[in-house]
Amino acid sequence: MSSTYGENLKLSIFGQSHGPAIGMTLDGIPAGLPVDPDKLQEFLNRRAPGQNDWSTPRREEDRPEFLAGLLDGYTCGAPIAAVIHNKNTRSGDYANLKDCPRPGHADYTAQVKYGGFQDAAGGGHFSGRLTAPLCIAGGLCKQWLEEMGIKIGAHILAIGECGDRYFDPMDPELETVGTDFPVLNPDSGAAMRDFIAQARAAGDSVGGIIECAVTGLPAGIGEPMFGGVESRIAQIVYGIPAVKGVEFGIGFDTVCVPGSQSNDDFAVVDGRIVTLTNNAGGIQGGITNGMPLIFSAALKPTPSISRPQQSVSLSKMEEQALEIKGRHDPCIVPRAVPVIEAAAAIAIYDMILGNTQTDRRKN
Amino acid sequence: MSSTYGENLKLSIFGQSHGPAIGMTLDGIPAGLPVDPDKLQEFLNRRAPGQNDWSTPRREEDRPEFLAGLLDGYTCGAPIAAVIHNKNTRSGDYANLKDCPRPGHADYTAQVKYGGFQDAAGGGHFSGRLTAPLCIAGGLCKQWLEEMGIKIGAHILAIGECGDRYFDPMDPELETVGTDFPVLNPDSGAAMRDFIAQARAAGDSVGGIIECAVTGLPAGIGEPMFGGVESRIAQIVYGIPAVKGVEFGIGFDTVCVPGSQSNDDFAVVDGRIVTLTNNAGGIQGGITNGMPLIFSAALKPTPSISRPQQSVSLSKMEEQALEIKGRHDPCIVPRAVPVIEAAAAIAIYDMILGNTQTDRRKN
Amino acid sequence: MSSTYGENLKLSIFGQSHGPAIGMTLDGIPAGLPVDPDKLQEFLNRRAPGQNDWSTPRREEDRPEFLAGLLDGYTCGAPIAAVIHNKNTRSGDYANLKDCPRPGHADYTAQVKYGGFQDAAGGGHFSGRLTAPLCIAGGLCKQWLEEMGIKIGAHILAIGECGDRYFDPMDPELETVGTDFPVLNPDSGAAMRDFIAQARAAGDSVGGIIECAVTGLPAGIGEPMFGGVESRIAQIVYGIPAVKGVEFGIGFDTVCVPGSQSNDDFAVVDGRIVTLTNNAGGIQGGITNGMPLIFSAALKPTPSISRPQQSVSLSKMEEQALEIKGRHDPCIVPRAVPVIEAAAAIAIYDMILGNTQTDRRKN
Amino acid sequence: MSSTYGENLKLSIFGQSHGPAIGMTLDGIPAGLPVDPDKLQEFLNRRAPGQNDWSTPRREEDRPEFLAGLLDGYTCGAPIAAVIHNKNTRSGDYANLKDCPRPGHADYTAQVKYGGFQDAAGGGHFSGRLTAPLCIAGGLCKQWLEEMGIKIGAHILAIGECGDRYFDPMDPELETVGTDFPVLNPDSGAAMRDFIAQARAAGDSVGGIIECAVTGLPAGIGEPMFGGVESRIAQIVYGIPAVKGVEFGIGFDTVCVPGSQSNDDFAVVDGRIVTLTNNAGGIQGGITNGMPLIFSAALKPTPSISRPQQSVSLSKMEEQALEIKGRHDPCIVPRAVPVIEAAAAIAIYDMILGNTQTDRRKN
Repeated sequence: MSSTYGENLKLSIFGQSHGPAIGMTLDGIPAGLPVDPDKLQEFLNRRAPGQNDWSTPRREEDRPEFLAGLLDGYTCGAPIAAVIHNKNTRSGDYANLKDCPRPGHADYTAQVKYGGFQDAAGGGHFSGRLTAPLCIAGGLCKQWLEEMGIKIGAHILAIGECGDRYFDPMDPELETVGTDFPVLNPDSGAAMRDFIAQARAAGDSVGGIIECAVTGLPAGIGEPMFGGVESRIAQIVYGIPAVKGVEFGIGFDTVCVPGSQSNDDFAVVDGRIVTLTNNAGGIQGGITNGMPLIFSAALKPTPSISRPQQSVSLSKMEEQALEIKGRHDPCIVPRAVPVIEAAAAIAIYDMILGNTQTDRRKN
Repeated sequence: MSSTYGENLKLSIFGQSHGPAIGMTLDGIPAGLPVDPDKLQEFLNRRAPGQNDWSTPRREEDRPEFLAGLLDGYTCGAPIAAVIHNKNTRSGDYANLKDCPRPGHADYTAQVKYGGFQDAAGGGHFSGRLTAPLCIAGGLCKQWLEEMGIKIGAHILAIGECGDRYFDPMDPELETVGTDFPVLNPDSGAAMRDFIAQARAAGDSVGGIIECAVTGLPAGIGEPMFGGVESRIAQIVYGIPAVKGVEFGIGFDTVCVPGSQSNDDFAVVDGRIVTLTNNAGGIQGGITNGMPLIFSAALKPTPSISRPQQSVSLSKMEEQALEIKGRHDPCIVPRAVPVIEAAAAIAIYDMILGNTQTDRRKN
Repeated sequence: MSSTYGENLKLSIFGQSHGPAIGMTLDGIPAGLPVDPDKLQEFLNRRAPGQNDWSTPRREEDRPEFLAGLLDGYTCGAPIAAVIHNKNTRSGDYANLKDCPRPGHADYTAQVKYGGFQDAAGGGHFSGRLTAPLCIAGGLCKQWLEEMGIKIGAHILAIGECGDRYFDPMDPELETVGTDFPVLNPDSGAAMRDFIAQARAAGDSVGGIIECAVTGLPAGIGEPMFGGVESRIAQIVYGIPAVKGVEFGIGFDTVCVPGSQSNDDFAVVDGRIVTLTNNAGGIQGGITNGMPLIFSAALKPTPSISRPQQSVSLSKMEEQALEIKGRHDPCIVPRAVPVIEAAAAIAIYDMILGNTQTDRRKN
Repeated sequence: MSSTYGENLKLSIFGQSHGPAIGMTLDGIPAGLPVDPDKLQEFLNRRAPGQNDWSTPRREEDRPEFLAGLLDGYTCGAPIAAVIHNKNTRSGDYANLKDCPRPGHADYTAQVKYGGFQDAAGGGHFSGRLTAPLCIAGGLCKQWLEEMGIKIGAHILAIGECGDRYFDPMDPELETVGTDFPVLNPDSGAAMRDFIAQARAAGDSVGGIIECAVTGLPAGIGEPMFGGVESRIAQIVYGIPAVKGVEFGIGFDTVCVPGSQSNDDFAVVDGRIVTLTNNAGGIQGGITNGMPLIFSAALKPTPSISRPQQSVSLSKMEEQALEIKGRHDPCIVPRAVPVIEAAAAIAIYDMILGNTQTDRRKN
């Protein structure tokens, strides 16, 4: 299926960028979980457009209207449904996209798959705007995880050539991440903002890497093989537009170290089993080991750039120059930080709901 | 769920490393698809252990016995079931694993999750041996894809510091990959083999990166969001033990190039729409665009090394030195190459079965 | 999962009887399917309350607002989402339900399952009102099936002691069913309406049986075992509140005839394979055989009656008399007729989408 | 999907009647659950053929070989896999079935769906023999439910015109069911056996109704709408060949009583909430209410009869007389009793695994 996710909870996301509304349904959530709407709104605001100089000037409040599933501030056991009505739409900007697809966007693949019936305006269902309902679901799951002592945080690890430092994999500094610009090192953040400003000035765009950490996760979450933590997180994170790479722990750098260094040796600290390093990112055999869960996602540069590009006319089957109008982020990475957190929160909460960890212990 | 995969086909993998048998069931496959058992065996032999100097000396023939689903050389529409009986087992080698978990393995997480009831011998259900039934399913899907003109090939891109050249993303040289050692450049292969031999001599192990390409894929395969090609492939590839990173197209390198360079411009060549570069690895919006599909997976070094490591005694809750006995690959990357192909074949065949591509065209 | 259905399409239904809105999302539908909103509204009107003397006086227009998935009168390939805003609500009528559950309703089971957090007003998510979004999804599927020549119709077979005649199982008279009251024989309908009126006058309620037929179905739809037509239809039909029995073909009467009479012998008529009887209701081995599909569902009497009943106070753990206020149907069977059609349409369209029927023929 | 079942556990059944083996995989089961193989074998023996005068003389031991998932008498957390090798096969008996389909069997629908590639011998994957692996899975679930105090039993309610008495719906007499012939009233059983013997003598067959009861179920199991107990049980029970009707509680008889009689009034007995009647069969709103769960299934007469029947030659497209050879039960109802219990056990254990019942209570 396309826009549904979850083995135990069932998330279904709907909407097109310039349609009447976007939204989500979230089924399978237990009753009696508290929901703090202000905290949710704060979380959504981190993603919302139009707030600063590095994002699209399109202004949307992203204020969810809950249609079902909540009562008096608690989940009521029924499926949760929420919508965000689209207000600030300009579908006229996109009239030509079906014939002349934008490079780097889903215009061409949508045209092939849907035969011209797709809603092309603003990328339709493929728009990054669909990460708003993902953040509603993820913001809720994040609250419920926090109630269990599980925290999720992310920061920008790199934008173009500008890098932040890594989380300490043994003790990720979630509280240190900046609130106005999500990096650990403010100087790195300043360099990144400059870099984005230069790209904007050049009519270009840039991508980046987001690093995410989860603390407080008990050992034993996740299932073997295709139900492993890496599989479940990667599936949802790759559902975020622009993500082209996902790695766990030291990920691709694993090739640089021998087994004697990449294995995480065990120790007993304060009566708990821990590992002395955390190259595995908190996962062995697809199952959490009680250490912080660490993963990174690479996001490509925003495909919408104002520089001229080469496209084709599908009706004439000939090449055609393209200049993109409309409002766009020169870099979506800062706004994608809460989206990555949301995706992780949904995947983890789903796995916790379905945890078949035994309550039996062999003598 | 743990060891099941698929939206349209349903793959279920079972078995433990030293149990009576390992195997798989594969449901949802149309009737009338031809199966060439010799070709399947050749494919399985690429993964089988004990054949050369860089892999474990444990010898298993990996000859599948089909119990159901095939008749007279064709699929019959009923679920396919196949088993491989384990012959060369030595469970005595693993007696201590429940109390003293091996670093880098799933021993500890299995102990937490299954409370001591898990089959710990050889890693049990977490063993790399479970990739044999994955290769049965994948070898079948690969044959059926080839019948449609879709080919899948992979090679070792890197082992430790030794790198092979990349596939040409516009026209991957699947036929160039070596049959005795799967690289594009034989000199790179020789260096890798030396590197592995050194690791073995040092009682250590090494990891690597495998690059996989799929050619002949039509545009329009895959679904939006969580049903996208990246999501579906990543989910199954992360089900392979040791995989810690997955990227598509230029993946993490996307951070190094601006949008004006990372976007794949369109052109018309021989009456077909193509892109002039293939940084996206053949996927836009989760859907294939008709260009070769390219992805890479990073595999960590084999966690079993003969060097002494630090573990703990779970019963005594104290640290304890560990030396691992048993037979192990100093590098599983060469044997993992067909496993990555198998995973890709299963994911792609699943998506083709469920393709909701419209047959209607808007005027 | 609770309120989701479908193997190939994914239907998710949400809402509570007296919440802000009820609605549905429907994912996995191909692009380019036409939607006739007037025809859909006509279909929904058959279920809508407040239109006649045998149903609840609560008036709701049941006019769906489509938020996503449609464009210019066609499906656009993105998930379809529609809501109906609740207007005529009186939640005050239901204040006491959490402590004093109504017999025959889900009040008590909801209280146990959701611990008092459930939305009890009007039965919340368990209300028959949730069949309105089911009818949106079903009304759409019905249109798309009709485009393929597949028609679905249902009639009231019995209410209390008043029976209609059966459909001719070889050639169900779908067009004969009355539009103001859905029976084949208008005299039967008149008797049923009298019977309902008597129940109302007595402060009581009555149940009934609905017979549904599907014509134009090709042979070969459905899968073996748990994916069979009976399994798929029964699962969704039992999702309709009040349904307590489902049977196919002659169903429970099968016990009255020997195999020599219940088997449907084959014949060749006009170059087509047919059966000479249709006791199986068009299904063999879970797969359609090209004959009309016939099934019946039994619906219990509306549990809301104005007569005094015995309940309990859950807080005091003592018995307590109960008189139900509010607006209720003395018989929901007439309004359930389109709901049964909707459920059948969704199940059948789902199976057609996932049909793995081979296109290969063995010589 | 066809031969897979389960939301939380994943059951996959494979095999053809005269193939090398039949079997099942069962994934998602917690570790540490005890398995009593003798008790399982006893359960399987109740279904096994060849043991008495009313069933097929084909003799199969139905002794499962466990390939995976069990260790030292307990589940080990890995998927469970078991096979039964077919021994006593006579595929020659079925040579003609692809051209001349047997009335009442799936021969014709399989031919249409699988294009002649299906394994037609003995009905292939559609054979009643596939209920043996269902009973392996169900027999295991039954043991695990019994450990929780949940018991499942069934009896023959009717064969032809011979009826047994109903279970007491308030307190089903599971222990009273006969072990040699599963009825409550031995006189009814004697009449049924005579009736079957007459059918056999006449070269004919008969069907029947099986009533099943589950005791000890806590309130709160099951989910709303399509995840309700009725939906989940009906889906799996209709996967059993020959089942054509399923009803819960008083089922179709609900039409005969007004709401004032069909509603189950509440009472407090010994500090527990109970209902004074059990017309609902222990389910309200799809969720258990703590009363015994009661359902019935109607099974059609064995379609294989030795009397001449009318079929067609599919190659010649002309009518053709058919006489069926081979070994068949004149009535499969007695052997189907444990199969119904198995199906119920699987469905209920699945729902218990996925139970999202809240552990929070609103003040």
